[in-house]
Amino acid sequence: MTNTNFDNNPIKDIQSMHDDRNMPIDRVGVKNVKTPIIVLDKVRERQHTVADISMYVNLPHHFRGTHMSRFIEIINEYRNTLIKPSKMEAIMINMKEHLDAEEAHLEIAFPYFIEKEAPVSKQRSMMVYRCKFIGQQSEGHDFTLEIEVPVKTLCPCSKEISAYGAHNQRSLVTLRTRLEGLIWIEDLVRLVESSASSELFTLLKREDEKYITEHAYDNPRFVEDVVREIAIKLMEIPEIAWFSVESDNEESIHNHNAYAIIERQVR
Amino acid sequence: MTNTNFDNNPIKDIQSMHDDRNMPIDRVGVKNVKTPIIVLDKVRERQHTVADISMYVNLPHHFRGTHMSRFIEIINEYRNTLIKPSKMEAIMINMKEHLDAEEAHLEIAFPYFIEKEAPVSKQRSMMVYRCKFIGQQSEGHDFTLEIEVPVKTLCPCSKEISAYGAHNQRSLVTLRTRLEGLIWIEDLVRLVESSASSELFTLLKREDEKYITEHAYDNPRFVEDVVREIAIKLMEIPEIAWFSVESDNEESIHNHNAYAIIERQVR
Amino acid sequence: MTNTNFDNNPIKDIQSMHDDRNMPIDRVGVKNVKTPIIVLDKVRERQHTVADISMYVNLPHHFRGTHMSRFIEIINEYRNTLIKPSKMEAIMINMKEHLDAEEAHLEIAFPYFIEKEAPVSKQRSMMVYRCKFIGQQSEGHDFTLEIEVPVKTLCPCSKEISAYGAHNQRSLVTLRTRLEGLIWIEDLVRLVESSASSELFTLLKREDEKYITEHAYDNPRFVEDVVREIAIKLMEIPEIAWFSVESDNEESIHNHNAYAIIERQVR
Amino acid sequence: MTNTNFDNNPIKDIQSMHDDRNMPIDRVGVKNVKTPIIVLDKVRERQHTVADISMYVNLPHHFRGTHMSRFIEIINEYRNTLIKPSKMEAIMINMKEHLDAEEAHLEIAFPYFIEKEAPVSKQRSMMVYRCKFIGQQSEGHDFTLEIEVPVKTLCPCSKEISAYGAHNQRSLVTLRTRLEGLIWIEDLVRLVESSASSELFTLLKREDEKYITEHAYDNPRFVEDVVREIAIKLMEIPEIAWFSVESDNEESIHNHNAYAIIERQVR
Repeated sequence: MTNTNFDNNPIKDIQSMHDDRNMPIDRVGVKNVKTPIIVLDKVRERQHTVADISMYVNLPHHFRGTHMSRFIEIINEYRNTLIKPSKMEAIMINMKEHLDAEEAHLEIAFPYFIEKEAPVSKQRSMMVYRCKFIGQQSEGHDFTLEIEVPVKTLCPCSKEISAYGAHNQRSLVTLRTRLEGLIWIEDLVRLVESSASSELFTLLKREDEKYITEHAYDNPRFVEDVVREIAIKLMEIPEIAWFSVESDNEESIHNHNAYAIIERQVR
Repeated sequence: MTNTNFDNNPIKDIQSMHDDRNMPIDRVGVKNVKTPIIVLDKVRERQHTVADISMYVNLPHHFRGTHMSRFIEIINEYRNTLIKPSKMEAIMINMKEHLDAEEAHLEIAFPYFIEKEAPVSKQRSMMVYRCKFIGQQSEGHDFTLEIEVPVKTLCPCSKEISAYGAHNQRSLVTLRTRLEGLIWIEDLVRLVESSASSELFTLLKREDEKYITEHAYDNPRFVEDVVREIAIKLMEIPEIAWFSVESDNEESIHNHNAYAIIERQVR
Repeated sequence: MTNTNFDNNPIKDIQSMHDDRNMPIDRVGVKNVKTPIIVLDKVRERQHTVADISMYVNLPHHFRGTHMSRFIEIINEYRNTLIKPSKMEAIMINMKEHLDAEEAHLEIAFPYFIEKEAPVSKQRSMMVYRCKFIGQQSEGHDFTLEIEVPVKTLCPCSKEISAYGAHNQRSLVTLRTRLEGLIWIEDLVRLVESSASSELFTLLKREDEKYITEHAYDNPRFVEDVVREIAIKLMEIPEIAWFSVESDNEESIHNHNAYAIIERQVR
Repeated sequence: MTNTNFDNNPIKDIQSMHDDRNMPIDRVGVKNVKTPIIVLDKVRERQHTVADISMYVNLPHHFRGTHMSRFIEIINEYRNTLIKPSKMEAIMINMKEHLDAEEAHLEIAFPYFIEKEAPVSKQRSMMVYRCKFIGQQSEGHDFTLEIEVPVKTLCPCSKEISAYGAHNQRSLVTLRTRLEGLIWIEDLVRLVESSASSELFTLLKREDEKYITEHAYDNPRFVEDVVREIAIKLMEIPEIAWFSVESDNEESIHNHNAYAIIERQVR
């Protein structure tokens, strides 16, 4: 599959030349390669989506360069196929073998759609969440799942001190979990959404808008509250070995954001 | 499907209230709604992709607001279905009807993948092109196709004045064509790529890299040359009523870009 | 200052060569050149800022290319100097002369700081507004001022239908005005900010937060209301010949935006 | 300066309330606050620029929230003043004191202009480099300088295998150095630029373009070579305790990037 057609090729292989600068490279590879993929969907089994892939290996000090085209040959084998954590592992083994490397790093980012039901009208619509599978392999193997979940936060201070109303806004929660077992994207999204003043929806009728407005007013959250509530829930999940959760509040009274992050090694 | 369930609803409809400020609004609607769609593929018939949709209507001066949720209900009907120019027309008729408007404007942007063959090794890989369908409907109907095509340009001046070598770089060509008939995305991409110093590929082996390096050196192009050659070819295509073509050269000797645009009403 | 030092230069001038493709180019030039500049400040007289400049001219069909370095030589003359509308005119005359062109187009974008006073505590802080000077010169001369003003909008429908609270969010208003006289950036910013549910501030103490929360609740605005109120005020200003005003509401109950635009030739 | 005016204020202080969730927050604060600042310039002594500031502190588990407005009050004290490493330390001491925190983190990002001379014509022009001061303070104090330097790389493989020409492109080098002494931005920029196939310039006349084209052809560099050469030079600088250097090659034959990173604890 790889460069074997070049074994007898008179075109010189500069990358394989010896390097005597004694400086190993931590990661080298290709970044932002786009390809269609399929991912698991809790409800509909399979979801077609569009991936942005970065692939890196370590480069020992005695090689001048890596063979960039081999990364793409590997991507080629997996395009339009189902990508799941075990496939991530297979791809990285493939990378280490064909790139003659001891370590492999793989990131696959993609938009993921979940159908949601409006709280009162029960009308259904699609919400998109940006996800990323992050794999790291040297002797062991790590799999980290990153999910971005936009939510609504309503300021507890503004509510408390004002005669009526309270400022509220979109907040973007970015959750990273290092997993030692399988967790559905849908379940982590729910965990995050249930920790904010309200979740967001694409389609809302007036009765839903009334419900969400009042629900958010009844559940005020600082940016600190959001990351804390999520962190507490994550601590309970046995599949999670490490997590970080950050929230970026697009404050509707300021033009800057409020931000908080908790990072925790769980086991 | 629309708001008729609210006709007897006690929740007040603020948007339908009379507005006496005598100020019609050119366009009002929803922006950047994400949804999965399917588009036509010249080779493989159908391609799954991910759309970013904006939908607007005009608002006569006597209405206070439009009903934003109706746009989403319309998107809902078309998600995961095939979107082509005639479908664009149907969606805009739907928008005018359900939003009580005389004009509709619809933009559907999506990444589109084309499989390409490397020039010498014939190895195949996927390239992505950002595309946008733009529809406008009042009395008549307009359909504009926008495609972004990254290419390589090699500077004729640098080649001419230097003893060896020539600076070259990625250039992003953005083509917009108002169409009066069907043209394949694949054919417009080819037209653009054949007008540059070289086209780009995702997978290249060394013999391909040699070919492209020499081919680009043999075909130097200023940013001005690129837009002119494309414009001349577009003038020959009877389906095109209007076009604009711009090229944004990421100059590899500067940190700013060189840019050119030609816009032309053809018929 | 320009290329005259090349008149006797043996290095060939490819750009000046004759072109027989009979295809004039609407605009060609340099894009995103960064340079420090000074602009007028209503309160402090002068403000140092950082500009992103694009400069284009038309290219008649018989020239192969333009001389890109001449644009930079012109920028060089004006860096670290005061840029105001009359200077824009001088720069474009300079461009037409040194590039042998009939038309010149100049865009200078920059962040502009205004000190604001919190409504109750009177504490002062800086807000930044992205501005752009846009000049167009052929036979006549046009000067357009673009300003982006982030504001707060509170939804009238959400307020009306809910027992308490109302969703609110940041909204980005983009105002473009073609001017036939001088108007201060500060005055247009005030006009926009006074048309929203509330203006934004960088520094707010608790008594200010209470004021803004209640003020926004007392002044609900749809995206349609914001552009209409701004448009009505702009109609009254004799220096404005044409305007467009758009508002992009970052809806805190959705993950997509609500959008409206009014464009109007005034005189 | 801070909230002492609220000591007798009847407005409730929600943030100071006790929190019993037993979950400390690693960092909480404000993000992307814009303000004008002044930085040191090796040649001209002072440079006016525009900063994007993020400020965070840790939040012990027993406090519900931090006082966001105090961060802004601190920024207010330093706006339009000279920001240098020792000032960073002072700001963070201020943050720890006024926010009752044990740790402070401060990031100040800004565009920095350096005047450069073209290699042959000696014409002068401005290049901009995005810089960031990053400070971290708990018991000790860390100062990290981040600089982005766009350069040109010419592919050694493409040069070797092709009869003529070689593909080349812009590459963005991001350098981070943890410093234990003062180093000028200008000197680190030079170190990076001298490690690529060529540096970039804003203004080049034809004799300069010839020089750069040939110079780049004579100095081909893989993305791996660039980071290695920079790393080797950084190892020699006694003020540097740790560094990371990454290079992102905007490959002109592909639409994806080639990437390499070296990170090293030096002392």
